[in-house]
Amino acid sequence: MEAIQAKQEKLIQLFRSAPIVQSFGLQLSYRDGSAVIDMPYNPNYDHGYHQIHGGVMATLLDTAGWFTVAPHFDFWIATVEFSTRLLIPAEKEALRACGKIVRLGKRLAFCDMEVKNSREQLVAVGSGTFSATSVPAKW
Amino acid sequence: MEAIQAKQEKLIQLFRSAPIVQSFGLQLSYRDGSAVIDMPYNPNYDHGYHQIHGGVMATLLDTAGWFTVAPHFDFWIATVEFSTRLLIPAEKEALRACGKIVRLGKRLAFCDMEVKNSREQLVAVGSGTFSATSVPAKW
Amino acid sequence: MEAIQAKQEKLIQLFRSAPIVQSFGLQLSYRDGSAVIDMPYNPNYDHGYHQIHGGVMATLLDTAGWFTVAPHFDFWIATVEFSTRLLIPAEKEALRACGKIVRLGKRLAFCDMEVKNSREQLVAVGSGTFSATSVPAKW
Amino acid sequence: MEAIQAKQEKLIQLFRSAPIVQSFGLQLSYRDGSAVIDMPYNPNYDHGYHQIHGGVMATLLDTAGWFTVAPHFDFWIATVEFSTRLLIPAEKEALRACGKIVRLGKRLAFCDMEVKNSREQLVAVGSGTFSATSVPAKW
Repeated sequence: MEAIQAKQEKLIQLFRSAPIVQSFGLQLSYRDGSAVIDMPYNPNYDHGYHQIHGGVMATLLDTAGWFTVAPHFDFWIATVEFSTRLLIPAEKEALRACGKIVRLGKRLAFCDMEVKNSREQLVAVGSGTFSATSVPAKW
Repeated sequence: MEAIQAKQEKLIQLFRSAPIVQSFGLQLSYRDGSAVIDMPYNPNYDHGYHQIHGGVMATLLDTAGWFTVAPHFDFWIATVEFSTRLLIPAEKEALRACGKIVRLGKRLAFCDMEVKNSREQLVAVGSGTFSATSVPAKW
Repeated sequence: MEAIQAKQEKLIQLFRSAPIVQSFGLQLSYRDGSAVIDMPYNPNYDHGYHQIHGGVMATLLDTAGWFTVAPHFDFWIATVEFSTRLLIPAEKEALRACGKIVRLGKRLAFCDMEVKNSREQLVAVGSGTFSATSVPAKW
Repeated sequence: MEAIQAKQEKLIQLFRSAPIVQSFGLQLSYRDGSAVIDMPYNPNYDHGYHQIHGGVMATLLDTAGWFTVAPHFDFWIATVEFSTRLLIPAEKEALRACGKIVRLGKRLAFCDMEVKNSREQLVAVGSGTFSATSVPAKW
């Protein structure tokens, strides 16, 4: 358990170093084994109908899944595939994504992810497959 | 056919007005009924392992599907859900996404999408469901 | 609430009339708004490695989702698309699938589905999109 | 190339030994590297609205993908996940499914699958992830 927490600490450092994290203003924390990604509202990522672009939801889902799964592996993991389901539009509001492991195998993991708005409404959900690579983890 | 082209022209205007399009530096053109989305390499959207983030692939897939499907509807359409499959990593390179309609119904459409790098290698693929809303289109 | 229960009763009758339900020996009940599908082990649906075929899991997921969503609509619904994620193999054992609504719209619904074995282990999960048609429901 | 054909021959034998193949009356052949699965119409697999059940489409998609990917691996492969998109209903008609590899990795493969009816209309499509296990193949 402590080992997992130590890995989570290192992953938070890694997270902060990612250019996209800075561009989107994302923050990562861990709660009960789940990666929690917070994103403040940023009008730069709206689509032409002035809601937050579905690709932003996908980015949050992928990121939440990846960081939820990563501490359980000693190797870099890769997102193999993930789904994005858009429930309701999100407009001018902060978003929070989190992940929940569904199945942890030796090399493959399934994770469910969700995005909520600041009123706790479910905005988007998704599920992903993540695979261990052969590159030793830095965490 | 001409009607479709006129709609495509208006959709290109709409596309250009989208904040996310400007943030990512995207360009839209239409070729044989397919929306083609070009994205120059921008280091701001790399993840912590310094490849382009999967969420960017998802954004390109969603956008290519949406703009491929939209000219066929007289109402705004919504992305219902889409998948993102990541084939190979993309590093420091321009990307091009396009869509191909699989099934066009009265209210629902399926579209396949793909992202290639500048060497014409398939980087990501996905499929999506798009649904007509009750809001009259501006195109 | 009563209306929903009356619909569920009629849907159970409809379910029983389906040829595939008889071929697979399926049973439907409703619990807390969720359709519960029970399938006894039947060696006729094993694949060549003598586990239960993934297509059977998909059938259970689709069916559980469809019958969970149907009572909420006054029209026949169609499965638009669904995913099937296979967690662990299932061998010579009864299976139980159930559905849980994620988002109920006017015409479209999202539902999560899962299949467990008789030891309560999660065997398969999936998510689906279901759409109302224009054919009035018989329930 | 010859090696692949020899493997395909052995896989056809394996296919024939699968109980579900006999229950559904399926046939497997290979054409240009694609597994082609034929299924005669069988009223036993209709749903309550008397069309062929979506789970049958899923079974055909999964099977077509699995047998398209398998000859490329020296180990048993497992379907990790796959999607099923239902385009049009199928009624009282024979179906044919086939697969097309999208990406072949060392351990993971992506495959696109489709089901057509006897009028060559696209009935269902899907995409799947298949993973090599550590069990040596029998083919």
